[in-house]
Amino acid sequence: MDRLHKLSKLRSLMDEYKIDYLVIPSNGPDISDQVREHWKIIAWLTGFTGSYAFVVVSQSFAGLWTDSRYYIQAGKQLAGSGFELMLPGNLKSSDHTDWLAENTKQGDAIGFDGRLVSVTDFRKIKNKLKNRSVRYVTDSDLFTKIWTDRPGLSESVVRDHLIKYSGKDRSQKLAEVREKMKKISVDNHLLTSSEDIMWLLNIRGNDLEFSPIMLSYFLLGEGSAVLFADIGKISEELLEEFSLLKIGIKNYSTVTEVLSSVKEGSSILLSPDTTSTALYDSIPANVTIVEDVSIPGRMKAVKNNTEVKNIEHVMIRDGIALTKFFCWLENNVGKTRMTEFSLALKIQELREEQPDYIGPSFKTISAFNENAALPHYETDPVLSSTIAGSGIFMIDSGAHYNGGTTDITRTIIIGNPSPKQKRDFTLVLKGLIALASVKFPAGTKGYQLDMLARKFLWEAGLNYGHGTGHGVGFCLNVHEGPQSISPAANRTSIEAGMLISNEPAVYRVGEYGIRTENLMICYEDEETEFGRFLKFDTVSLCYIDRNLLERDLLSRQEADWLNKYHEELYAKIAPYLEAGEKNWLRLKTNPV
Amino acid sequence: MDRLHKLSKLRSLMDEYKIDYLVIPSNGPDISDQVREHWKIIAWLTGFTGSYAFVVVSQSFAGLWTDSRYYIQAGKQLAGSGFELMLPGNLKSSDHTDWLAENTKQGDAIGFDGRLVSVTDFRKIKNKLKNRSVRYVTDSDLFTKIWTDRPGLSESVVRDHLIKYSGKDRSQKLAEVREKMKKISVDNHLLTSSEDIMWLLNIRGNDLEFSPIMLSYFLLGEGSAVLFADIGKISEELLEEFSLLKIGIKNYSTVTEVLSSVKEGSSILLSPDTTSTALYDSIPANVTIVEDVSIPGRMKAVKNNTEVKNIEHVMIRDGIALTKFFCWLENNVGKTRMTEFSLALKIQELREEQPDYIGPSFKTISAFNENAALPHYETDPVLSSTIAGSGIFMIDSGAHYNGGTTDITRTIIIGNPSPKQKRDFTLVLKGLIALASVKFPAGTKGYQLDMLARKFLWEAGLNYGHGTGHGVGFCLNVHEGPQSISPAANRTSIEAGMLISNEPAVYRVGEYGIRTENLMICYEDEETEFGRFLKFDTVSLCYIDRNLLERDLLSRQEADWLNKYHEELYAKIAPYLEAGEKNWLRLKTNPV
Repeated sequence: MDRLHKLSKLRSLMDEYKIDYLVIPSNGPDISDQVREHWKIIAWLTGFTGSYAFVVVSQSFAGLWTDSRYYIQAGKQLAGSGFELMLPGNLKSSDHTDWLAENTKQGDAIGFDGRLVSVTDFRKIKNKLKNRSVRYVTDSDLFTKIWTDRPGLSESVVRDHLIKYSGKDRSQKLAEVREKMKKISVDNHLLTSSEDIMWLLNIRGNDLEFSPIMLSYFLLGEGSAVLFADIGKISEELLEEFSLLKIGIKNYSTVTEVLSSVKEGSSILLSPDTTSTALYDSIPANVTIVEDVSIPGRMKAVKNNTEVKNIEHVMIRDGIALTKFFCWLENNVGKTRMTEFSLALKIQELREEQPDYIGPSFKTISAFNENAALPHYETDPVLSSTIAGSGIFMIDSGAHYNGGTTDITRTIIIGNPSPKQKRDFTLVLKGLIALASVKFPAGTKGYQLDMLARKFLWEAGLNYGHGTGHGVGFCLNVHEGPQSISPAANRTSIEAGMLISNEPAVYRVGEYGIRTENLMICYEDEETEFGRFLKFDTVSLCYIDRNLLERDLLSRQEADWLNKYHEELYAKIAPYLEAGEKNWLRLKTNPV
Repeated sequence: MDRLHKLSKLRSLMDEYKIDYLVIPSNGPDISDQVREHWKIIAWLTGFTGSYAFVVVSQSFAGLWTDSRYYIQAGKQLAGSGFELMLPGNLKSSDHTDWLAENTKQGDAIGFDGRLVSVTDFRKIKNKLKNRSVRYVTDSDLFTKIWTDRPGLSESVVRDHLIKYSGKDRSQKLAEVREKMKKISVDNHLLTSSEDIMWLLNIRGNDLEFSPIMLSYFLLGEGSAVLFADIGKISEELLEEFSLLKIGIKNYSTVTEVLSSVKEGSSILLSPDTTSTALYDSIPANVTIVEDVSIPGRMKAVKNNTEVKNIEHVMIRDGIALTKFFCWLENNVGKTRMTEFSLALKIQELREEQPDYIGPSFKTISAFNENAALPHYETDPVLSSTIAGSGIFMIDSGAHYNGGTTDITRTIIIGNPSPKQKRDFTLVLKGLIALASVKFPAGTKGYQLDMLARKFLWEAGLNYGHGTGHGVGFCLNVHEGPQSISPAANRTSIEAGMLISNEPAVYRVGEYGIRTENLMICYEDEETEFGRFLKFDTVSLCYIDRNLLERDLLSRQEADWLNKYHEELYAKIAPYLEAGEKNWLRLKTNPV
């Protein structure tokens, strides 16, 4: 069935179900940005494969909204689909909710699948249309009817996430979450982010391509606990453990039914950003809903000492693989045929050799020259560029290990760099160093620190369009909240124990892109009469390409930072290398 | 009547009116931080004279909440009042709304004067108490009954704010505001901030001690316009002008009545932060209320070219007065008796000599040594310290001129500074220079820039507890929104034409305080492939005390900034000085 045919079938169904406008989000019922094939409705319908989009369909309109990182890709992929790429032409109509506000009439019916639209997103629509009396049809799952060869849902196995990795057992975590619930006087806590549940129960699954997660819900009360998941995925041993902790197991799909019988007059804490409209609406009206980031969501962002030690250990493992990769690349480029895609495979193979490796933490971005100018370039097996001649090569990759998750970007030069490339690279590095070196008072938000990574770029009239840092899970999602370092007003303070990325960049469309990314852990620094102060420690271990460095642009302190970083990196990684690799790394990490 | 007696009378009245908890804010019905004597209820009742407080009274409790700048002052002033100073002992109970949430019971009646509590503040209370069924009594004006010698409201005269100052005539402003209303589809716009109305109508009044404002409301429709004010304050000439523009005048107190007859089904734009509950509640239920910063509130923040030119001119006038002041101070200290208060008077006298001077833009903070450690020190006529011996002297002052408003802080050393004082002063200066020199992309928010002014202090374990920059009105309020530069997540971007302060500081309790403050205007810098970039230009003109400078802590670029600032300052101010002053300024502005 071609895409125009799919669209036409969909419109017939909409007509039948009396839906004037159908809204389709890009996520599955877990409302995260990693989507299983079963839920890739937008890709099936429109051909667009990016991770973020909203689609609106009416009898006379079919449009897709995404964000700037996907404009070029979406433009190509939507060709011939019948779908229009909706670019933000003016401030007034910047997203699909604005479009709906401008185009719907009194009495129109707006339909969507309530399992897929978060409370927050539904509210945005309702808020924009509040002056209009439209009808909402929230049980509009039309695709089951027309998507006949739809992929099924995976069958995975859940494993124990051992205490030597987690540092805290599940009974203690349950007790701590219950204690926090008591403090804020909530009777029930609904967990809708599966990663929160993995953390809470010290388990890991493999329902998703890039996260060791079992999709699930969890309902925690003072004396009750129910895990909503497919019981078949859980081993006898774990079931016994759960039973001892009085955790009941119910089928994933029964969650709305259980929610509808939450005790009258009680209260329930949930996050409207990750709770679907379907779940939210099943809660009885006389239950008080308290909306906030989930308690495990906040707790898991702060890594405990065991986790921190594991992360530091994993960074050495990851650093060994990265060193071997770049050493191999430099020794073989121009001799062995290599493409962006083959290099993405190569780095994965080298990581697979490391103990405790689980899998990639996201799809590797391996990009040469102008491809590196696309922050979220998709490295295609067939179309990917050959690495030949000279140019900028950027690789953004990471892995899950039992002892933590990595995410690192390095940009290197193949052949000789231009002065402009060196300047851009050095300005990015200066930003990375400024953020890595900052000392800041407790209570500081990520948005206060973001500009440190940009200031030198701004001075040169440069900038980058994404945030500077995201939280990173512990053998969970590589992107994890609630903290971030970005221009957006995220109200979560950076706390000691948080793991966060530091990834300034510059993208010159049609030419090249440069990004350097390390992970950092936040630590306590000192306490003065002005309060507690915190600092970062960079934990990622991979050399930074001195061939791209314009030494004169570095201050003495910046050069000291780089030399110290390289010295420590060499001391940690060299013992695990072969002689040739060791010599190579010595040269790469010599002082500047 | 002493304060305990007042409290007891109030409690009797509360009993009579069946109010369990009475909430009293520190503002008048204009909901701004400048309050006329008539509305200084908290000062009358408790003795506390700070500009920000909330009071809660019940039969068994009387407490006052204020912010950290007033803790010491409030502690002293509340002694013997029967009122407890409510310090934030724990995070859970940080303000009066939290206290109410913890202490009220089902069925309790919470009373306040609806004219004095903004919609936003009322919502905070309701939100905190949402799980409780309490009653709200919003017409509780009990003080008219017990405050028998209450001061009346001022009679002031409104004057024309000439086009040579404003740069845009009132008809054009009205047309532009109406155009913006049309764009966002609102039928009516209620203006509740008198400064917005002064700006819109190009008038100035004198109802307030420190702002040339006539208290008023304004209701603007597509074809209608009503000014709510005392008609007696407005000249015949202005009345005629208004009549030509079809602006009706109604009595200030009729605003609720007029609001209650806003056309059914229409929409009205207002700001919940500055609109009182009484006004809000008078709007009919079927009128759609659109809540946002007022349109004139946003427009007046961006100064036009005429205003910018006037501001630059006024800065020279102000700089002359400041130079004469510091020259006189240095020549007379130790010879003539001087106190903090006499110096505050002296600086005002010197400004009065300047053309177009209107009055002080706020109460001068003139503080010596440990008094300077209180960011909002009140310079008392009787108790103020004598300037003698050696020490740090800080003076924060400003004035309104027809051509703009000034606000400047300088810290100087009398005698010899300690190394610690020099280091602190220089770290503050480095922050000021970093912010003054930054280049940033259009769309940047103040919270992204704030840390520039703090970074060097943070590195030394220092910080300051207030924001770095506030907007400044044009011959209006010295504190003006919507922009700010502070750690708080203010969503207004810094735009070209905005006037904003730059005032990093360090306060060492019991020792001394250091603050250096300049005003800056934002300008366009350049446009690159990465977008438009903006920069600041410092417009305040007064020397920075080199005797407090630790030159070794300044980078070459920072020293260059300071030298350039001093050079331009000398060139602009010197022509207006007498020979002795000129020589003195030459020495003060020599390169470092």
